[in-house]
Amino acid sequence: MTSFRQYFPILDWGRSYNRSALSNDLIAAVIVTIMLIPQSLAYALLAGLPPEAGIYASIVPILLYAIFGTSRALAVGPVAVVSLLTASAIGQVADQGTAGYGVAALTLAFLSGGFLVLMGVFRLGFLANFLSHPVIAGFITASGILIATSQLKHILGVTAHGHTLPEMLGSIFAHLNEINWITVVIGSAATGFLFWVRKNLKPGLRRLGVPPLLADVLTKAGPVAAVVATTVAVWAFDLAGRGVNIVGTVPQSLPPLTLPGLSPDLMKTLLVPAILISVIGFVESVSVAQTLAAKKRQRIDPNQELIGLGAANLGAAFTGGYPVTGGFSRSVVNFDAGAETPAAGAFTAIGLGIAAVALTPLVYYLPNATLAATIIVAVLSLVDLSILQKTWRYSRADFSAVAVTILLTLGLGVEIGVAAGVAISVVLHLYKTSRPHVAEVGLVPDSQHFRNIRRHKVSTDPTLVTLRVDESLYFVNARFLEDLVQRRVADGCAIRNVVLMCSAINDVDYSALESLEAINHRLKDMGVGLHLSEVKGPVMDRLTRSHFIADLNGQVFLSQFDAWKVLTDPTRMANAVE
Amino acid sequence: MTSFRQYFPILDWGRSYNRSALSNDLIAAVIVTIMLIPQSLAYALLAGLPPEAGIYASIVPILLYAIFGTSRALAVGPVAVVSLLTASAIGQVADQGTAGYGVAALTLAFLSGGFLVLMGVFRLGFLANFLSHPVIAGFITASGILIATSQLKHILGVTAHGHTLPEMLGSIFAHLNEINWITVVIGSAATGFLFWVRKNLKPGLRRLGVPPLLADVLTKAGPVAAVVATTVAVWAFDLAGRGVNIVGTVPQSLPPLTLPGLSPDLMKTLLVPAILISVIGFVESVSVAQTLAAKKRQRIDPNQELIGLGAANLGAAFTGGYPVTGGFSRSVVNFDAGAETPAAGAFTAIGLGIAAVALTPLVYYLPNATLAATIIVAVLSLVDLSILQKTWRYSRADFSAVAVTILLTLGLGVEIGVAAGVAISVVLHLYKTSRPHVAEVGLVPDSQHFRNIRRHKVSTDPTLVTLRVDESLYFVNARFLEDLVQRRVADGCAIRNVVLMCSAINDVDYSALESLEAINHRLKDMGVGLHLSEVKGPVMDRLTRSHFIADLNGQVFLSQFDAWKVLTDPTRMANAVE
Repeated sequence: MTSFRQYFPILDWGRSYNRSALSNDLIAAVIVTIMLIPQSLAYALLAGLPPEAGIYASIVPILLYAIFGTSRALAVGPVAVVSLLTASAIGQVADQGTAGYGVAALTLAFLSGGFLVLMGVFRLGFLANFLSHPVIAGFITASGILIATSQLKHILGVTAHGHTLPEMLGSIFAHLNEINWITVVIGSAATGFLFWVRKNLKPGLRRLGVPPLLADVLTKAGPVAAVVATTVAVWAFDLAGRGVNIVGTVPQSLPPLTLPGLSPDLMKTLLVPAILISVIGFVESVSVAQTLAAKKRQRIDPNQELIGLGAANLGAAFTGGYPVTGGFSRSVVNFDAGAETPAAGAFTAIGLGIAAVALTPLVYYLPNATLAATIIVAVLSLVDLSILQKTWRYSRADFSAVAVTILLTLGLGVEIGVAAGVAISVVLHLYKTSRPHVAEVGLVPDSQHFRNIRRHKVSTDPTLVTLRVDESLYFVNARFLEDLVQRRVADGCAIRNVVLMCSAINDVDYSALESLEAINHRLKDMGVGLHLSEVKGPVMDRLTRSHFIADLNGQVFLSQFDAWKVLTDPTRMANAVE
Repeated sequence: MTSFRQYFPILDWGRSYNRSALSNDLIAAVIVTIMLIPQSLAYALLAGLPPEAGIYASIVPILLYAIFGTSRALAVGPVAVVSLLTASAIGQVADQGTAGYGVAALTLAFLSGGFLVLMGVFRLGFLANFLSHPVIAGFITASGILIATSQLKHILGVTAHGHTLPEMLGSIFAHLNEINWITVVIGSAATGFLFWVRKNLKPGLRRLGVPPLLADVLTKAGPVAAVVATTVAVWAFDLAGRGVNIVGTVPQSLPPLTLPGLSPDLMKTLLVPAILISVIGFVESVSVAQTLAAKKRQRIDPNQELIGLGAANLGAAFTGGYPVTGGFSRSVVNFDAGAETPAAGAFTAIGLGIAAVALTPLVYYLPNATLAATIIVAVLSLVDLSILQKTWRYSRADFSAVAVTILLTLGLGVEIGVAAGVAISVVLHLYKTSRPHVAEVGLVPDSQHFRNIRRHKVSTDPTLVTLRVDESLYFVNARFLEDLVQRRVADGCAIRNVVLMCSAINDVDYSALESLEAINHRLKDMGVGLHLSEVKGPVMDRLTRSHFIADLNGQVFLSQFDAWKVLTDPTRMANAVE
């Protein structure tokens, strides 16, 4: 029963649902719905899909997440980065505007949903941790730049293609002769207005005495104002007749039942992009959900989140949508507007359902340039190049990971960029641990403490070398330790005993065990004893399961001071190295 | 000057070369030459190349290694695993017996040599450490099984193909009707004889009072005896006319000057196999060289070894050979026979040169079945399934790496097998460190030591939680720490202070820094202080370069006992958390 309830968090919050929560959730839903209408249309445009796909992707997925998700405030739907990834993935298998393109989007959502659910059932949420913060930050920044650039064509009214920065800029440049100046005026005005709203409206309203929440809502409603104003302008002056691209007919309908394309070829091609979309969407979503949950001392369960997001994507696949995840801006608005439970999401879905049926004719004259402006203003807030400076100051390794991720994402596309970022993070980590910090230590006078002989004034003994390795021993650094001990012992003829001080060794894998055995044998051949001190419990448990401790040409000491006492005492020496 | 000499180790040992070293080297060379003649022919057969390729690959490469290599005893030439990898790689681009096949082998040696030299010049020898011991052990064992299976067709006298175990067995089974019983008799007799020599001859000779070195040499000469006996038998009874496959005409010539194929397509296809061959050959060679060097307290330089092996492979590419590396059995024989310097290798090259010019007509009637028998007996000594049992007992993670490597190498081929082995080693390491051991610690009474509250009787304070994380903090476990602290603090309402005891934290990367910042902010929101204790020097240096220490809602204590004294003292509490 527990395990059943675990998969349905709705059973927890649903039982204590009351009128106060209902009214808070309703208010939040109205605010989020107003914000989502232009956003959904815009992200569909970014994904290269018809505008209704954005609205459909916000209805059923939100309902399913309300049942399976664990976050109380997360708002699920199309988001900028996932829309970009979708466009990039589907662009490989179909041309924009064809029926195959829409079907491939459904397949992508289906594969992504299936993968997320599987990850959740097998409790593999930890795999998302392989994406380091610098890689995510670099990827989001580069994606923001790519997305903003991809929308330039709508602002200029030209046709252009490409999935990398050079491709996009080259394509725009080649089509500059198609430029439509009316579109440029609309797009620039909308962009300028939205930047102004974002930067100046809220403080201005606050100065006029408007309450903070209302000021916030009015600010977030900026895109709605831009949509209304430009739509009216296009209608009133018949600008569509003068070459301004408009949204056009959007079917008046609830989300349709759809079937994703399930041909093996299509699925094979889209599998890797689907995994990438799942992982990136999951990371973005969980970060938002954790931040919001922490503010109310609530907790989310990352593995159940996988199931919630997976269900949402499966829902999108069968109702005319495309891949979705928990969005940052919409979730923050939902939270700030007072949403208490996932029911707020369900009410938002109802609001968008009404919009899909009743309001779509109103956006017929909406210019694409306005939607592009809302995207540009939204994603440029994601661009944060200060991560380069911060990581440069902190660590060259992290800086390299960010720089490689940004450059490759911009230059070779989102998939290669993020894969290279992950690879370089892992390789740099392995490289760092392959050459661990090793201190030769001596006794701090009048104490039982041992410190680095290069940093402190300590006592040493010419017959005794004590090495403290500040890293777990595993295959990547096993040979390093062998070399190090051999070099150190070859240097000093008086050396009779070597002690490895293991206080910072958290694990010894089989490769390192074999290296320790090799060190032991070589030292034995040279007539030098090998001893261990301060071995941690779990490590000692494991070592005693091998022959190493039995074969050890020396002893295991509980503390380094014990080792020092025994090994520098001439009367006990004979025992120690026997 | 130093850096010039560094690239030519011959300048070191060459200057002190004397008559005693010369005579020792000459004796070793004669013994190794006798052993290498059948071995070279056999490994060429394994690689799918004409027999002379094996001899050519043992002449110029050995000379070049003598100039550039650092090991005094390593014998370079064709080896079993590299020959198998060569057959697998070239099989993708050409059919055995065609001219293209031989040219592709040269290209493979050329790419492999170039890659090794580049690795050496950029001092990237450490990358070989990414192959863990379990992966190498599993790979060598699986390769031994594959190689032995690949030779079954020669013992049976049938044609068969395939690069994986199922393919090979299936193909042999399908061609069983071609079986040649005379070949079976020759092959089985040779195999049985060689197993008997390996197992019983040396102890038998020792019992008869033969000195150990001579007994060893006679044992190693077993293949020569088998070669002579079966060749004479085939010649005397005209067995070639009865369907026994023989070596046939081998050109009487010194190594020819050859040019590897350099078309971009060919190089692109062979690049990944060449890298794999280089890395595996390098790892095998360095292991052997290090083991032998340690016995004489000599040292080898892994980066210069890359250059030595690279030069040897480039030499093979231009003189009709194929990829080579330092072989285990030949190097051990060379060492045991008393080789003192790489000059022994040069003399071996001269011996093989004489054989190539003068002795090749003698192997005309040599049956392939005999060569197959020498390969089978040699490689079955590489098969060591006890590694499965040893790693199972020591650690499930290492066991998984071995098992996956063995199964995938047998089932899907050598390249996928070793790549999967490396990948699973890395992922398992990351997984282990993603859930580090964390102990909540308390004060051991009447001491200044802090120990795990679950394992020891210690004092604690309800307002203070001290967590000791036994792992470096980096992107893979950053979120784990966030969750852990949040869960622990949510559990206890009385908690006023959290101390992270950092004695086992060797590194904090940027991702972990951001997690620490998040923990600090969340705890601050809850009115709980965050403190650090026993931070290592390099870690503290790095943390002070960020804002974290300045923003810390608490203090950094030199020792955990200092933290305990301050944070459990009610009169100083106010200061501590301000």
